[in-house]
Amino acid sequence: MAMDADGAGPVVVLVNPQMGENIGAAARAMWNFGLSRLRIVAPRDGWPNPRAVAMASGAGRVLDAARICTDTAEAVADLTTIYATTARPRDLTKLVLSPERAMADARARVAAGERVGILFGAERSGLENEDVIRASAIVTVPVNPAFPSLNLAQCVLLLGYEWVRAELPPDAGAVFETGRGRAATAGELARFLDSLEARLDARGFFWPAERRPSMQGNLRNLFARAALTDTDLQTLYGIVRSLTERQEGGAG
Amino acid sequence: MAMDADGAGPVVVLVNPQMGENIGAAARAMWNFGLSRLRIVAPRDGWPNPRAVAMASGAGRVLDAARICTDTAEAVADLTTIYATTARPRDLTKLVLSPERAMADARARVAAGERVGILFGAERSGLENEDVIRASAIVTVPVNPAFPSLNLAQCVLLLGYEWVRAELPPDAGAVFETGRGRAATAGELARFLDSLEARLDARGFFWPAERRPSMQGNLRNLFARAALTDTDLQTLYGIVRSLTERQEGGAG
Repeated sequence: MAMDADGAGPVVVLVNPQMGENIGAAARAMWNFGLSRLRIVAPRDGWPNPRAVAMASGAGRVLDAARICTDTAEAVADLTTIYATTARPRDLTKLVLSPERAMADARARVAAGERVGILFGAERSGLENEDVIRASAIVTVPVNPAFPSLNLAQCVLLLGYEWVRAELPPDAGAVFETGRGRAATAGELARFLDSLEARLDARGFFWPAERRPSMQGNLRNLFARAALTDTDLQTLYGIVRSLTERQEGGAG
Repeated sequence: MAMDADGAGPVVVLVNPQMGENIGAAARAMWNFGLSRLRIVAPRDGWPNPRAVAMASGAGRVLDAARICTDTAEAVADLTTIYATTARPRDLTKLVLSPERAMADARARVAAGERVGILFGAERSGLENEDVIRASAIVTVPVNPAFPSLNLAQCVLLLGYEWVRAELPPDAGAVFETGRGRAATAGELARFLDSLEARLDARGFFWPAERRPSMQGNLRNLFARAALTDTDLQTLYGIVRSLTERQEGGAG
């Protein structure tokens, strides 16, 4: 998968973050999904912050390139579309998007040459109303109303995840991996089943005779469902041979 | 939003987790998305674990109800469908699903009365091959190949998020919240625009005359895009009135 790591993705704006550890964890969450542009508005404990650096281990490049801003207005000045992450209901008239819709929208805008950003509030208090007002839309994660306690890095993680998901092709969700061998053809499967059924016939397996069609159908369906590889078929041939030999040896 | 907190969701199985903090963080991530059934296979530091309890704060009920198992076979014995989360490529023939596909599949199976579970491996080593083999499918999160370092709780978080997303109606992604008032009707907007244009006409705004249609079109489009409420219209009437009065006062 090609990961968008060239800085074209959304700018992540952390507004008044408190703990350095959380800034570092947010940087990690960004880089997990290829986001690299971080802006930090008035971090409580100043900058640089050794705790942020320690926590960001492996994603230090995101912190190194971070821009420190004195206020939100400065952080968003060059952006055309801004999303505000907030769970709290607000007395504001504003579009509320799911993370999925927001990042699909963001990707379309970035493709059209826009510069988009996502605002994240301070750990406990979240975004101030004046920062939510700047945004084109609110993004709300559908958390358990009984326990809506996502931390800062988790919220960044979910938005980054949705940013990546928005670029994946629709059929990217299910891949059949054949670690060993290639998928067997229907003809190869039919030859194996013919061979197996001949062995079973010789032992009177399909009995009584009127049940043969349904028994045979179930048997063929069982193997058809299994999505076998050519290697699997060789294994099955070997099993049948082995069982047959033992049976013949015991009886002989 | 109705959150599935009645224990019908997937069972989360942590196989050989090491740090109590990570078990607690995983419990929090579960409960953020309404998952409550946790099974822990042979936790390294024994059980109960005070560090897990401290970290789980607010999601302690998930830990209280957790079942400790001696091996993975015991943990999955009553499950009908098992998903194995792993990022590492394996020499196994197995369906690989995105978190989205896996949880959509899980939801359909749970609705049909199946019992499903998700396996998560130890912090550094991940799942052993023998546990991956038990699974019906592999689940892989599409992380940045240059930084594929999701921690245990983050991985649980993303699966829980997708479990919730799979139950949301398709149109749940965008809601227009009118914190103040209700959405204005087209008729109300038209009356405002008529009023505004009459004022502008009186001041010769639409000049030269041949540009009037395009100027008027742009103006109407600007306000139509804004998705105004009835309260917004009252505000706009007030603004126009205020600007007009000042202008007349200044000129008078």
